[in-house]
Amino acid sequence: MFNSFGNIFRLTSFGESHGSAIGGVIDGCPPGIWLDREFIRHELSRRRPGQSALTTPRKEADEVRFLSGIYEGKTTGTPIGFLIPNENQHSADYEELKTVYRPSHADYTYQQKYGLRDPRGGGRSSARETAARCVAGAIAKLVLNEYAIRIRAYTSQVGEVRLKGSYRDYDLSLTETNPVRCPHPATASEMEALIREVKAKGDTVGGIVSCVIQGAPAGLGEPVFGKLQAALGHAMLTINAAKGFEYGDGFEAALFRGSEHNDIFINDNGSIRTRTNYSGGIQGGISNGEDIYFRVAFKAVATLLIAQQTLTTAGEATLLKARGRHDPCVLPRAVPIVESMAAITLLDYLLIQKVR
Amino acid sequence: MFNSFGNIFRLTSFGESHGSAIGGVIDGCPPGIWLDREFIRHELSRRRPGQSALTTPRKEADEVRFLSGIYEGKTTGTPIGFLIPNENQHSADYEELKTVYRPSHADYTYQQKYGLRDPRGGGRSSARETAARCVAGAIAKLVLNEYAIRIRAYTSQVGEVRLKGSYRDYDLSLTETNPVRCPHPATASEMEALIREVKAKGDTVGGIVSCVIQGAPAGLGEPVFGKLQAALGHAMLTINAAKGFEYGDGFEAALFRGSEHNDIFINDNGSIRTRTNYSGGIQGGISNGEDIYFRVAFKAVATLLIAQQTLTTAGEATLLKARGRHDPCVLPRAVPIVESMAAITLLDYLLIQKVR
Amino acid sequence: MFNSFGNIFRLTSFGESHGSAIGGVIDGCPPGIWLDREFIRHELSRRRPGQSALTTPRKEADEVRFLSGIYEGKTTGTPIGFLIPNENQHSADYEELKTVYRPSHADYTYQQKYGLRDPRGGGRSSARETAARCVAGAIAKLVLNEYAIRIRAYTSQVGEVRLKGSYRDYDLSLTETNPVRCPHPATASEMEALIREVKAKGDTVGGIVSCVIQGAPAGLGEPVFGKLQAALGHAMLTINAAKGFEYGDGFEAALFRGSEHNDIFINDNGSIRTRTNYSGGIQGGISNGEDIYFRVAFKAVATLLIAQQTLTTAGEATLLKARGRHDPCVLPRAVPIVESMAAITLLDYLLIQKVR
Amino acid sequence: MFNSFGNIFRLTSFGESHGSAIGGVIDGCPPGIWLDREFIRHELSRRRPGQSALTTPRKEADEVRFLSGIYEGKTTGTPIGFLIPNENQHSADYEELKTVYRPSHADYTYQQKYGLRDPRGGGRSSARETAARCVAGAIAKLVLNEYAIRIRAYTSQVGEVRLKGSYRDYDLSLTETNPVRCPHPATASEMEALIREVKAKGDTVGGIVSCVIQGAPAGLGEPVFGKLQAALGHAMLTINAAKGFEYGDGFEAALFRGSEHNDIFINDNGSIRTRTNYSGGIQGGISNGEDIYFRVAFKAVATLLIAQQTLTTAGEATLLKARGRHDPCVLPRAVPIVESMAAITLLDYLLIQKVR
Repeated sequence: MFNSFGNIFRLTSFGESHGSAIGGVIDGCPPGIWLDREFIRHELSRRRPGQSALTTPRKEADEVRFLSGIYEGKTTGTPIGFLIPNENQHSADYEELKTVYRPSHADYTYQQKYGLRDPRGGGRSSARETAARCVAGAIAKLVLNEYAIRIRAYTSQVGEVRLKGSYRDYDLSLTETNPVRCPHPATASEMEALIREVKAKGDTVGGIVSCVIQGAPAGLGEPVFGKLQAALGHAMLTINAAKGFEYGDGFEAALFRGSEHNDIFINDNGSIRTRTNYSGGIQGGISNGEDIYFRVAFKAVATLLIAQQTLTTAGEATLLKARGRHDPCVLPRAVPIVESMAAITLLDYLLIQKVR
Repeated sequence: MFNSFGNIFRLTSFGESHGSAIGGVIDGCPPGIWLDREFIRHELSRRRPGQSALTTPRKEADEVRFLSGIYEGKTTGTPIGFLIPNENQHSADYEELKTVYRPSHADYTYQQKYGLRDPRGGGRSSARETAARCVAGAIAKLVLNEYAIRIRAYTSQVGEVRLKGSYRDYDLSLTETNPVRCPHPATASEMEALIREVKAKGDTVGGIVSCVIQGAPAGLGEPVFGKLQAALGHAMLTINAAKGFEYGDGFEAALFRGSEHNDIFINDNGSIRTRTNYSGGIQGGISNGEDIYFRVAFKAVATLLIAQQTLTTAGEATLLKARGRHDPCVLPRAVPIVESMAAITLLDYLLIQKVR
Repeated sequence: MFNSFGNIFRLTSFGESHGSAIGGVIDGCPPGIWLDREFIRHELSRRRPGQSALTTPRKEADEVRFLSGIYEGKTTGTPIGFLIPNENQHSADYEELKTVYRPSHADYTYQQKYGLRDPRGGGRSSARETAARCVAGAIAKLVLNEYAIRIRAYTSQVGEVRLKGSYRDYDLSLTETNPVRCPHPATASEMEALIREVKAKGDTVGGIVSCVIQGAPAGLGEPVFGKLQAALGHAMLTINAAKGFEYGDGFEAALFRGSEHNDIFINDNGSIRTRTNYSGGIQGGISNGEDIYFRVAFKAVATLLIAQQTLTTAGEATLLKARGRHDPCVLPRAVPIVESMAAITLLDYLLIQKVR
Repeated sequence: MFNSFGNIFRLTSFGESHGSAIGGVIDGCPPGIWLDREFIRHELSRRRPGQSALTTPRKEADEVRFLSGIYEGKTTGTPIGFLIPNENQHSADYEELKTVYRPSHADYTYQQKYGLRDPRGGGRSSARETAARCVAGAIAKLVLNEYAIRIRAYTSQVGEVRLKGSYRDYDLSLTETNPVRCPHPATASEMEALIREVKAKGDTVGGIVSCVIQGAPAGLGEPVFGKLQAALGHAMLTINAAKGFEYGDGFEAALFRGSEHNDIFINDNGSIRTRTNYSGGIQGGISNGEDIYFRVAFKAVATLLIAQQTLTTAGEATLLKARGRHDPCVLPRAVPIVESMAAITLLDYLLIQKVR
């Protein structure tokens, strides 16, 4: 269950890393949208393995094939079926995983849940599934473009290397100029060095992605259980390895007094704005027209090239050392996934607001 | 839209602070559950205003009236309708709010969303709505009791006063021994002092609630978009004033190496356990049988008894100073709400897992 | 589960005939609609028991109390909670039903489903629940009025007394001039006579309700699983005692050749219309702007004032003769319920079409 | 929207007749089910065009490719993605349809709904989409087999040729012995003759499919809006060309008195049964353990090989005569589609009942 996300604009995804393909169905896409294949290909390439020395050396072409919902290059309003063939599968890499539970992976929990599991590459729990999200996210961005809404994420922390300040302090057009996707070149270099160092040891490291949505109109989000931050938080916490979500000043808000933290309304040449934006563009669960910004924490990748103690499925102690090709740090590739989930969520809420 | 929460066990709530009543409908409650009224009353009293000097002096009896779904004291499996009459309404307190947008409240966003709004006490955006959640949460706890699942939240931070360590370091049976709901009496006193000090100035302060779920079986949570952490995060981020959610080691995870952070499996007299629990009891989105724990950040209450600059609905500058009776800090009353949302979510996923 | 109906405009209902009240929550009602209490009261009175000699002599005031979602007489866009107190309950009438399964009622199936049941008046399976639908239906009609969409149902058959022809052959403004709600006075008299005759014997009789929706724009309905006829059919088949649904020429369509049955398009002063309307205003699951019409079959009421053989809950043979006050024929009171469900469904699809 | 069907066991489908493939995603399939490819192929072949002289001569191989959700031949509980490549497309046949609205097709309504449409073969409104339902239906049948639940449909009427009596009067194992799928060989011959005659004239004809579900336990179906007949009716009315649905004695029930029509309970060697089954196995919306039976009316195929008057998209009169290869009667191929939708619905409700 729950392989669908969204209410009006809705992605249903399928696929494991080692089947013949992954893919999905996008229902509720507005009709008449020009489906810019080049843009979609570009978005997928940002998530693709093997894009730099910082990511897994697995090479996957990640070419998306659209199967329906398009006529003469435009969306028709009917469901968009698509698939991305799986290639370059080394199932043999996973043979021994049939009888071992990898630490901090989903092997044990899937087995407990279903009574059986597909051990090849983590099966459905593989992050390969997120490629389908990037397809849907790219299409959502194409629709949001028509509303001049823009979503930009970047790596703001890797291990102990943090980017100080907020998105306002940086030129986000620099994000894609380095493989770690940090808009501050000097910090990017430090992050890169750290990832290389960790990788050299066969280890992995976590970090934080920050994201800002600009141009969203006031009025998005639904009272009570459909608050915009709840939808965004839900979206982000479905991403593999995500451990936390905060918006506006987030956990820092615990420290503030109300008198410091309230966002005072000001009249900005006839339009109502706020002087500060601790609220992160959302008040009472509904967007207020200011920038919506949030952060997502990611843990270190669980697959290590160092030997780890673990158990076999029979409960016996064993040593596990991953072979295969793995990411030392998910952050660079998490950036486009965070953007995709934000785009899907925002478009969904934009369409929901239209019913009134 | 979205005034319902949950999939199988599902609360639909209604009501504003200044209508005649708030209430809800609980659909999907298992049949044959003894509806312990005393327990439900107790749970509601933990959320009730006026319970201590730390909360708003508003007095609300918060007596729940059940209207359906119960026969001879037990649930029948049909929907449980209930209401809680609103009393002690000082609508006059809110007369001036018709023409003013309160800073960091939902006045402006509701107006933008709907083109009109109920200004009395914040209307639907009032935290009074959470009383309905406590009714559903209390019933969910009664069902979870039958599975020996226990949920306990507590205040772990108020402003800069933090409780060190984790839930394992404290005796959670002490949580209810002080009005701030912190299981460490000395820290509780510090928190209390801080709240009193802030209140004396007409100001407010934020904080953090921590929560642990014990006894949940392995296998709860659904792959991909129904990950248990996403459902819990969604649930928590629907609570008024919540600004962030993290589970397991949360944002701290960004700092760790995989080799430090992986939870090694151990054979504990025949049952598979993990040596550490950085995962927070959830791996690949599915519970693994260990304790599920998480933290929720709350901002300071937006209503101040200090004059604040703001705008009228016509966009003119004005000064606003709240009258009425307000909480200086939501934390003490947020504790039972966090527990309630956790109980609703967990029961829902427990029932979902039954379909297999 | 499934005590909610609709997607955007959504009714969640609760209540049994012998609890303190029935009621519901309407989510997704557009804001700014004037809630005409007199009209709602009138609609409820059309469903009310005791309205004529043809219906049960039970007297129920059926006064609806609105609890939320309204400010200064208008809807606010937030959920509308409401209840209708139960009065005039003769629970004693039902004492013996604790241990008997009434034929063709839901006693046995509820017991099998839930393992327990509320025997008073059929509990949740009582048709009293439909009063909540009439409240939601009345509100839906108020919204549809703004789009000049009109829904009118009438009794077209009682037992063997049939109204010949279609809705086009009658003046539907005459429907409410007789207690059986048939727009042809002479046929109405025959129907009335039949109901009185059947009632005198302690027996009951079935019939058919016809309904037409006028003024709906082209484009309502969703391809594949959301076809408008499927939504309407679903809606009608949830009404107690409904046994069948057909739209357009329905079951008669089986007899026609395509060359007889296709609705030829014509240009009617610049607007595209169809010469005939065998399609019932729906083609490919989507409204085409013509009248939408359908028929719903109802079985005879299962409660008889004649002794019937049945079983006790212990499986022993017994004789059952209903006491209490029951309808000899549901048709007159089914008419407003059919209209209500049609209104809820149509408004929901109208709002869905807005997302594009 | 609404390209998904079902709640727990849920099919999301995509595809047009002239894209590269149609297909779908099945979510919520129980794990550990042996996916019998031969059975699925057989079920698809029952729906396939070109299977007999009574159906369209289009040849489509309809080979299903499974893409996910299966490991070592068994379902894993994760989503089953599948596709069926489209072959043998004569898009040229449809060139003129760009500028013509075919009578009683969905061309006009899709254009009105979306503002654009895919004219090739009816696009999404093509009945080709039902192949995806047969894949999901075949899988649902494999699961239902484990519960000894059996679903069998047959053609009971073509034009004016009717099969008298009910399913109890025939040997349903004969259904597949003739191309029209009628269990009574003599009537089947009459139906066949009628279809050939109609086809020779370039015309088409409607009919009725009857269906019976045997072995379903008591307790399936949800009160109020989730009544089992409403779910089945919804399912059937989503099938292309369906015009009506009735269960039990359906529209005939209008004629009966309650004293004739009630199903008296009897004790059949310790199990509670009913003497008659006018209820069609459903009472109060919930199955009672008796046979569930229903009928679905289908109109004549709208595509004729006779010239018909119609309008161009510019509103000008024109003559249309279909080329291409079309069915003279949908009934033979509707039988497996009715069974598939019944299987999907019943399995969904079986799984829903497990949550209690």
